[in-house]
Amino acid sequence: MSARLFVGDARVEDAATDAALVEGRGFAYGDGVFETMRAIGGSIPWWPGHRARLALGAARLRIPLPASERMETELHDWLSLHRDGVIKLIVARGGGGRGYRPAFDAPPVWALLASAAPLPRRPGGLVLRWCETRLAHQPLLAGIKHGNRLEQILARAEWSDPGIDEGLMRDTDDHVVAATAANLFVRTEGRWWTPPVDRCGIAGVCRSWTLRAFAAGERRLTVAAVESAEALVLCNAVRGILPVARLGDRTWAPHPAVADARRRLAAAHPAFAIDPNEDLP
Amino acid sequence: MSARLFVGDARVEDAATDAALVEGRGFAYGDGVFETMRAIGGSIPWWPGHRARLALGAARLRIPLPASERMETELHDWLSLHRDGVIKLIVARGGGGRGYRPAFDAPPVWALLASAAPLPRRPGGLVLRWCETRLAHQPLLAGIKHGNRLEQILARAEWSDPGIDEGLMRDTDDHVVAATAANLFVRTEGRWWTPPVDRCGIAGVCRSWTLRAFAAGERRLTVAAVESAEALVLCNAVRGILPVARLGDRTWAPHPAVADARRRLAAAHPAFAIDPNEDLP
Repeated sequence: MSARLFVGDARVEDAATDAALVEGRGFAYGDGVFETMRAIGGSIPWWPGHRARLALGAARLRIPLPASERMETELHDWLSLHRDGVIKLIVARGGGGRGYRPAFDAPPVWALLASAAPLPRRPGGLVLRWCETRLAHQPLLAGIKHGNRLEQILARAEWSDPGIDEGLMRDTDDHVVAATAANLFVRTEGRWWTPPVDRCGIAGVCRSWTLRAFAAGERRLTVAAVESAEALVLCNAVRGILPVARLGDRTWAPHPAVADARRRLAAAHPAFAIDPNEDLP
Repeated sequence: MSARLFVGDARVEDAATDAALVEGRGFAYGDGVFETMRAIGGSIPWWPGHRARLALGAARLRIPLPASERMETELHDWLSLHRDGVIKLIVARGGGGRGYRPAFDAPPVWALLASAAPLPRRPGGLVLRWCETRLAHQPLLAGIKHGNRLEQILARAEWSDPGIDEGLMRDTDDHVVAATAANLFVRTEGRWWTPPVDRCGIAGVCRSWTLRAFAAGERRLTVAAVESAEALVLCNAVRGILPVARLGDRTWAPHPAVADARRRLAAAHPAFAIDPNEDLP
């Protein structure tokens, strides 16, 4: 196969390395898995959770991972250059060739990326909206963090108002699943609940920690159940547990169970230490 | 953002061009559209159809296309080097940055690829199977040729027997939609029918030609309706119209309506001329 690449109006001169990417299955089909991870002080405290989910997704899609030792060595080296912030690891199926048929034994095309840590959260809590873009039911892809993310992109494209922090997505049966880039937990009857991710959605690493740490339950949630909850939080591995202050017209006052969850997370993961100037109820 | 790229065990030395690809949204999210086109004698007879579908998909996803004149000039130049075979055009959203939020004005990252023409079809007609992987209902992505193709990859990964040419896919409601890389037409009650592509599936360029040329209809099709049809064909823009000889245990003898369809396609598109040694009923 031959290839020629452009960025906007500029032609990129051919190189074997570009060919490997442009002919690969990540660029063509989103045929890969990825992890977005919080680094602090040159390490990734939740690496075991990320590695386990990466392995699960790769196994589901039958994508061979890079040799474990090589991946850990490169990650360690990358962390020495990018000690604090957000590290992204993408593993795309190698091989290429035209057509959907995957080569199960092709070496993967993989990349490490680094970007700055997120800005501090908005004081008082997140402001959310409902998204119109629905998540389709696809049990074969549910739970894993695969590279087909157009649904999340369409949902995130629904608003540009910087006063809105995140959007909640429903599935095609009107059940609430998650935010575009975070999992959702609701506090109801004195217990934390989160939607299952068996038909769509992603089994987040912070979601897994929260499920265990709080003996939370999985339950399908309607819009009414979310709007009538005692408290809401979003969580992901980059920002930790974030309280929700508003969803559309509904507002929530600070809740002691949210403060407790954040204190316990702060004790478990150094990136999510609580600002001593912040008053928690 | 910084990036480092690997192919299998080999580290690829950083270059701005690699960064553009690896940090781009094609590789990360399959955030793009593409066309797979048949070239003959240095031209693409169905280019207007491909261009129209590309524009439709890009508009749906709000991805700016390269300037039309630039795209046509580069395609023309590429065709002078790759006169006969299969040309693939991928247009991914540019911008990058971490997170799902798209930059609507970022210059696109786009590529032209070329590969050899497909091998001649199996004498007598295609051998098909039923795939277990279902197509999820996502009307926002239905019809367009976007870069999220894990469902087709999982379906195509279901078999490796070279005696099977293609697999038919159903949606989550058990309706038959298409083959993994071709549209399906069935002959019933003396007329050609194809499933609608309003909830899933791709509006193929050869499908559009066939719908018009034969005044075919759109209709949801059950497994029973497909298996009891008088004749089946698959079609796509690379291989044209291909008769089906077998689907699981069901076989079909050559049908004069299929021969008629292939004769008319051969008259309309030079790549699909019929081998004079082939006996058509």
